[in-house]
Parts: sequence; structure tokens; C-alpha cells
Amino acid sequence: MARIYMDNAATTMVDPRVVEDMIPLLTQYYGNPSSLHASGQEAREAVQDARAKIGSFIGAAPAEIVFTASGTEANNLALKGAALANRKRGNHLIVSSIEHDCILGSCKWLEGQGFRVTYLPVDGDGLVDPEEVRKAIRHDTLTVSVMQANNEIGTIEPIRAIGLMCRERGVLFHTDACQSFGKIPLNVQDDCLDLATLNAHKIYGPKGVGALYVRSGVSIEPLQHGGGQERGLRSATENVPGIVGFARAAELCFESMGDESTRLAGFRDRIIDEAMDAIPIAYLNGHRVKRLANNVNLGFDGFENDAIRLLLLLNEKGFCVSTGSACSSNSAEPSHVLRAIGLNPLQARGSLRISLGRFTMEEDVQSLLDSLPRAVGSLRGISPLNDRRYST
Amino acid sequence: MARIYMDNAATTMVDPRVVEDMIPLLTQYYGNPSSLHASGQEAREAVQDARAKIGSFIGAAPAEIVFTASGTEANNLALKGAALANRKRGNHLIVSSIEHDCILGSCKWLEGQGFRVTYLPVDGDGLVDPEEVRKAIRHDTLTVSVMQANNEIGTIEPIRAIGLMCRERGVLFHTDACQSFGKIPLNVQDDCLDLATLNAHKIYGPKGVGALYVRSGVSIEPLQHGGGQERGLRSATENVPGIVGFARAAELCFESMGDESTRLAGFRDRIIDEAMDAIPIAYLNGHRVKRLANNVNLGFDGFENDAIRLLLLLNEKGFCVSTGSACSSNSAEPSHVLRAIGLNPLQARGSLRISLGRFTMEEDVQSLLDSLPRAVGSLRGISPLNDRRYST
Repeated sequence: MARIYMDNAATTMVDPRVVEDMIPLLTQYYGNPSSLHASGQEAREAVQDARAKIGSFIGAAPAEIVFTASGTEANNLALKGAALANRKRGNHLIVSSIEHDCILGSCKWLEGQGFRVTYLPVDGDGLVDPEEVRKAIRHDTLTVSVMQANNEIGTIEPIRAIGLMCRERGVLFHTDACQSFGKIPLNVQDDCLDLATLNAHKIYGPKGVGALYVRSGVSIEPLQHGGGQERGLRSATENVPGIVGFARAAELCFESMGDESTRLAGFRDRIIDEAMDAIPIAYLNGHRVKRLANNVNLGFDGFENDAIRLLLLLNEKGFCVSTGSACSSNSAEPSHVLRAIGLNPLQARGSLRISLGRFTMEEDVQSLLDSLPRAVGSLRGISPLNDRRYST
Repeated sequence: MARIYMDNAATTMVDPRVVEDMIPLLTQYYGNPSSLHASGQEAREAVQDARAKIGSFIGAAPAEIVFTASGTEANNLALKGAALANRKRGNHLIVSSIEHDCILGSCKWLEGQGFRVTYLPVDGDGLVDPEEVRKAIRHDTLTVSVMQANNEIGTIEPIRAIGLMCRERGVLFHTDACQSFGKIPLNVQDDCLDLATLNAHKIYGPKGVGALYVRSGVSIEPLQHGGGQERGLRSATENVPGIVGFARAAELCFESMGDESTRLAGFRDRIIDEAMDAIPIAYLNGHRVKRLANNVNLGFDGFENDAIRLLLLLNEKGFCVSTGSACSSNSAEPSHVLRAIGLNPLQARGSLRISLGRFTMEEDVQSLLDSLPRAVGSLRGISPLNDRRYST
């Protein structure tokens, strides 16, 4: 049975062109970038090239890019590092209530350190209202963090409007762009960003590498101490092959961003329209238009409280899809994102995320559309919650 | 010109057999281990297999292995994580004065948090005296951390004797085994370890992956918050290819540890003996016998205060060697390790580290022995510090 991978929001296959670029760094140019000899210099140059490349895609200078081991690490560094370094400026943070667990976890940790955090509500589509941000900014607000696009429902946030407001008020603005980097434009100048989190493994690059953009002049306190790599902000021997793979992966995304976005948006819209036609009492989670081209998130009522059974049934048919964030897929709690857009706990457990990618083909979309309504129907047929409303 | 890489203590080439095992995880089994579908399950199983393998090499249960992105991260997690979680038990740490910068940096950070740290002296060979550890343990001592072998001078520390003493006194014992893992045996039971740091890129595995052994029952506070991976101790999507490569790299080391150690010790001893015969006023740094098989660290007086010129001269001839830790190779400070064993600042800047590895061949050793005395001689010939003592 062919496997059809539609969980590209969780992670992606590494593009073979990326692997090809990584291999020489594993077996040939394997020096430690801190070493002074020729092998070290080669590795250092490879990292510097990657840094310049990544910077160029978001309008940043090379020295403003700090490589990390993940988006999670970069988000931790952004929120905790800026808070600890700038405590004198204020001890209040503002984040949206639909941020990734690593943002919310960092906020919780900061609350334990005496910081105060405002969690902004979102509307039914998952949008943050810039006006709400404005109202929430206090004299002691240090950082505002709003993701560029949500990982579960794909909603694209108005980060430019929020950034402008933060800039006017002298508040640091951070965005978690893990889901959106390489898919929609991000420009740290136009978007008035002080901090931005990127990662590789959602854009056909390797796992184990991310980056934090830190605007020149913005202080952050390092969280990991040691040899002083990354200008002292993130000590540890650099993951040279990972960093090179990250830059190559980003390059491939930026080369074809417009065309790929159009292609995937076509698939996305077809899935949304045809699935909702074929499946009674299905609804779309997230904004219909302000939405990542690769994200479909559908809710189905009458599911005995759990889309995991639908996921597993589709898995038996070869489809890899998800019920939400991979990171919390084992959690008993319903998604905090779906709850925040107004779904009740039962609905929040009845939603499926289908995330398309570079290797998704027309026939994969057709296969899914052939299987999904039947799978939903068969689960509804055996659900204790089913009634005649759901019979097709 | 052929390049002869003799800086394996800084980092190593990834063994092609390791690369071969990593590639399928990049392009085929690329799921997110947290995902519930088949792709996620494959990735999860690959991580679990690697965890069990790594554990088996040091006598640990799989659940006691926490994967990180580096030895630096694991050392930070060991010292800070245990200190923050066990503050009530005590706020005093004991470390040797020749630990890696990431241990010393973590200690410095902890001092800023109100912890007290005793930095133990070492003898002229770089050995920690277990008796000194015993004397330094106080009623409020929480953790003792002594590296298994030093990264600059290769001296192997008496960790078992120290571990037994810590166990008797109810003090947590951590060892940084980054330089020694895969080269000499480590057994968390026999060595009475509560915490141990391992990494991959010194043993022909990939950069960007390390591990912390955490004895079952020992509390550590996570430093990175998010999706709750690694039993909540280290959130972030797992670097699956890196973890699999790490386990394979360890396996290859353990398969041939004895033979490889004998082979490299032969090279090491030949370099030490012949170089010291050929070069007047040269001395060995570190213990002559209690020493990693791959480490040579030689000091040469009369060097105008700086071995970097010798490194660069050897680099021109194709040799990659180092003046000490790669992490601090750009530092203006003389090595804290060489200072701790009693060298004056001038001597500490006149030392060269030659670290052999799996791909070092007999003819490489011969080439080095042909070039090194001449290089030292030519630098001495032009050194303002030279006098007749150094003429060969």
C-alpha cells in the first residue's frame, strides 16, 4: 500500500537536493568551525554562507541570525532571553492564546520568575486583533509575541500591523514563523520585527536546526553557556551539516514560493470544498482566505469526542494526517487552539489536520477525497453519538 | 597537498557507515516521532532503538537517556537542571578547575543564581585527587562534576573513586564524558554516576546531537520548554537522523574499542617519544599513562608566547592540529587547563594538541614526525625569545 503523507505541518521529508548538499559536510568538510586550521575554516565559511543566505531571505544581516537546534529552542531563547536581559525595561509580555506550546511553556516559566503575561484572545477564525494588542500594551510591556501563522489551523496573523504598533510603543516584537517561513514572505524590516523564529524541518530541511533572528542592538541573555559560539548567544559546536541543509532548504522554498503556494492552495481549496460537500456537518477551522496554502483543518461533529480514531482509520488506508499539533498528539487535553476559536471540548477532539507539501500530488488529493467521506461515515455509523443527521 | 587531520578531539569526520544509516531517516522514515500515524511510529521506534543502544553501552536503562542537541546542552542541563530542581537539598557544587567551558559557564550562571561553587585544583598531570573531593564535600553539597577525561591534555580522571565517595555522602555525581565516551569504558553503575554527558561528533557521529544520562529517580528541571518530548525534560522535535547516527557511531566505537585503543596508543606513544627526542626543551602536558589513547599535548619553550604560529605553519603543510580546546581557540586567554597544571601564561600559549582518530594512519604519524621538529625549529629560529638552548 502506497503511503500518502499529509502531515507536513508536523515535519517534512528532507528534499534530496538538501541531503546532497549536507553529505559533503558530514564526510569531507567536517571541521569544527572554531578550529583555526583549514578544516575549521571550511566549516566556518559554510556556516557563514548559510547565515548570510538565511538572513537575506528575511531582510536581516548575517550577524543577526543565531543558529539553534530547533524552533523550540529559538522560541525559548527569544522569550526568556529577551525577558531576562531587559527586565529593567519591564516585566510584562503579551502573547496570543494560540501560540505553540514552546511559547506558552516559556511564558509559564517566566511567570515563575516574576514576569506577568497577557494571553490575547483570538476571533472565531483564529485571528488576533491588532487593536486588542494595542489595548493590552502597558507601560511595563517588554515583548509582544504573535506567530506569523498558526500550526494547527493555518490562520495567517496580521503581524505587520502588530509590529508597527509595537515599534511605535517601543515594545519588542517577536514572531514564531516556524509554520510560515518559506511559505509566505517575512521581512524583518517591513514587519517591524525585533525577534523571529525559523526552523528547517518544516521546509524540507533536516530536523535539529532552527534559527533566531535578533535585531542588531536587541539584548538577549544566553540560555546555554559554554564556548561562546554564535557571538556568545548560543554556545555549542555548530551543527554544520544541519545549518547548511537549512539554508539550502530555505533557498529551494524561496525559489518557487509563489508557484508552489498557488499549486498547494488549489489542492487545499479542492479538499475543503469537496470534503465539506461530501460530509454532512463538517466545518472548516481557521480562516478561509488568510490561511497557509498547505493547511486544511476540518471538524466533524458526531465523533464520539475523538478524531484520533479517524486518524487511525485513515492511517490503515495509508494516509498520514493529524489531529492537531504533533507535539501534543499524545495529550489528553483538547487543543488549546481549537478551544480558543470557540470549539467546545467535544468538537476540539473531532478535528483533523491535513497538511500538504512539496511532494503532494494531484492523485494524492483525489485518493484522500475518495477515502475521507467514507471513513467519516463509517465512524459515524458506529458512533454512539450518531443519529440520522449524519447519514449520507 | 594531502590534508592530515589530527584534531579529532575538536570534532571528527562522520564515519561513512554512520552516514549510510542516517540517510533513510532523512528521506524515507522522516516522520515526527510524536505523530500517531505510521510515519510517526517508524520515527519513534528509530529513536527508541537508538536510546536503548546508547543506554546499553553505559549500563543505563533506555528511559534514563535524554537526547539533546550537543554535549554543551547536556552539561548545561546536568548542572543547572539538577541544581534548580534540588535547591532544597543544598546549594553547593564541586567541579574540577579543568572542566570544559560549558561546565564552568554553567557554574558561573549558577553562582549568579545564589549557588556556591568550589573549583578543585588538579596536580601537575591534571589529576583530581579524590581525597580533595572528600574534603570539599559539605553538608550542603548537591553535585560533584568531574570529567572522565580532559579534552585538552587527555588525562583520565579517577571518576570511580570520586563516584563511590559521592554515593556514600549522598551527593549527586556527574561526569562530562564527551571526550572519553566510546574510547574508554563508562558504566553508570560501577562508576556510581547520577548524571553523565555524552556526545556524537567526537566519535565519528554527526554534530548536533548529544545525550544526558539521568539516573532514574534523580530530578532535573527542564531548561527548554515546549511539547514535552524526552519525558518533559527536553522539549523539541527529536533530531531523528542525528540520534540514529549517534547510536550507530557509538556502536562502531564499542565494537572495536580495545583494538582501536591499542592502535592509537601506539601512535600516541611514538609521537610523544620521537618528538621529545627530536625537539629540545619539549614537554608533555597531561599524564603519561592515565591518558586517552588519541591525545598528545606537547609544550615547547621559546615560542614567543604563542603556539598559534606553529599551528598555522603546520596547517600550511597540510596538518590540522590545535592549540587546545577548539571552543576557545580564538580566545586571547591562555588555556585554563594548562594554567591549572602549573604552566605559566607563556608556556600555556606554547602548547600544541595533536589528537588522533579512526582515520589516522601510520604514514600520517610519520609525516607529522618528519614535519614537527622542523616547524618548531624554524619558528624558534625566528623567535625573539630564541637562544642557543634551542639550536638542534
